[in-house]
Amino acid sequence: METAYFNGKFLPQEEISISPDDRGFIFSDGIYEVVRWYEGSFYDMESHLIRLKRSLRELRINWADADMIPSIANDLIKRNGLEKQPAMVYIQITRGAARRTHHFPSPEAAPTAYAYPFSFTPDRESQETGIKVMLKEDIRWSRCDIKSVSLLANTISFQEAKENGLKECIFVRNGFITEGSHSNIFFVSDGSLYTHPESNYILSGITRKNILRIAHECRINIKEEAIPENRLRFTQEAFITNTSAEVAPVTEIGGNMIGDGVPGPITRQILEKFRDETGALKG
Amino acid sequence: METAYFNGKFLPQEEISISPDDRGFIFSDGIYEVVRWYEGSFYDMESHLIRLKRSLRELRINWADADMIPSIANDLIKRNGLEKQPAMVYIQITRGAARRTHHFPSPEAAPTAYAYPFSFTPDRESQETGIKVMLKEDIRWSRCDIKSVSLLANTISFQEAKENGLKECIFVRNGFITEGSHSNIFFVSDGSLYTHPESNYILSGITRKNILRIAHECRINIKEEAIPENRLRFTQEAFITNTSAEVAPVTEIGGNMIGDGVPGPITRQILEKFRDETGALKG
Repeated sequence: METAYFNGKFLPQEEISISPDDRGFIFSDGIYEVVRWYEGSFYDMESHLIRLKRSLRELRINWADADMIPSIANDLIKRNGLEKQPAMVYIQITRGAARRTHHFPSPEAAPTAYAYPFSFTPDRESQETGIKVMLKEDIRWSRCDIKSVSLLANTISFQEAKENGLKECIFVRNGFITEGSHSNIFFVSDGSLYTHPESNYILSGITRKNILRIAHECRINIKEEAIPENRLRFTQEAFITNTSAEVAPVTEIGGNMIGDGVPGPITRQILEKFRDETGALKG
Repeated sequence: METAYFNGKFLPQEEISISPDDRGFIFSDGIYEVVRWYEGSFYDMESHLIRLKRSLRELRINWADADMIPSIANDLIKRNGLEKQPAMVYIQITRGAARRTHHFPSPEAAPTAYAYPFSFTPDRESQETGIKVMLKEDIRWSRCDIKSVSLLANTISFQEAKENGLKECIFVRNGFITEGSHSNIFFVSDGSLYTHPESNYILSGITRKNILRIAHECRINIKEEAIPENRLRFTQEAFITNTSAEVAPVTEIGGNMIGDGVPGPITRQILEKFRDETGALKG
């Protein structure tokens, strides 16, 4: 029986239940984070905490315990004996349960806080051989910068990729590549590294941010510019990033091969540096 | 203690709880309907049921009991002694609880079905004197035709209206008026009745559909065309429609008066016909 966190308490996961009137359930009125445990430490917990607080602030959810997240996540790893395994902690905060009204409850409801850990198996094969992804019109809302649980567009888009035997769905908005359904995407073109700039059309990924730092340290020329779909054929490399996949080379997009159809040299250089960093976290 | 419906059973509302792993809570992966009870009958239950089934089909949620909705809703009214009051029934179906993955659970999870009734006080004053509404960029996703619980954009937009003392937030997408955060909107211009055509950018409201029928019966010229924001000043009347507000005249949009700032004659004619119809439902 796994131990999870719920509104200030550690409980067996099976004992946790949500009111059907929780605004997370009725309106997707909540936010989340997923943090990665590298057998000894979390990866860049500080950035996850900053982003979680930003999401809460953008939605004006007043949750007093945000600063407890690092300690809650640590506790969850330990209470579940996951210290020596690759693991993740999922954290979700909603505006709480209240009579259904489109406006925020007045007086405020007590936010609902839920977190649980899980072990997982890193997908090394995708990192070595690369993945194929689909392209699809970005049907999401225009506040993708908020890490909210309003994820229906992401799930139905990813489902379509999965049914086509593809590992991610990459979105195109107004002719430009934005990001994936649960990843950011980078391209290499003429030796420069491209990714969509921070804006309301992408989630500012923690791995994205660290990859940009690593690329900078590697003296790779960085251009935070969106790639138009019709210039994909001029890119030599591509990779997606997120907390679980880390860096996954992309060898085919929307049926078109990228470069030689194998992970490219700049992608491999960045992945190697990222592995060095995360390897050093292991206890 | 109110009686609600949950997964095939009628239970005291307080006894109902949702798994925190319900995809409705984690991904807003679910749909809903709100039906109106007119002291004797539901208003156009048939259309609500057709739309509910369409939403389920669009999301590929296989809920076997959809045809039970009319009987569940009736039971909820009766078990709660609401027969002789204005009331509503809220119904929500999600893809169910499963380990968190962006793709649909495989094998499928059992959908979660929740419904509850509530009495409410119709807002006669808004119908008589009209309401003021705000205008705001449509930040929602581009599948507004699915009545999903992925409503965060709607709630934060409506909250903004409420804080400005306004009764609805009307969305503008690419320069055109789409609809409200939880209503459709109609305009009268040069004697014709305009509303956004059915598309992926609006929810096809049941009241909207019936108002179009009523307008047709009144031999009003109907144009299912979107009004550009920059032509608002050429409209003489406006009103919003939804299940709870029915027909609410709009006298001011985004700080600009519509017509003479009072409910116009075509609006009043349509409202009166709508009241005749719903009045006849009363037992």
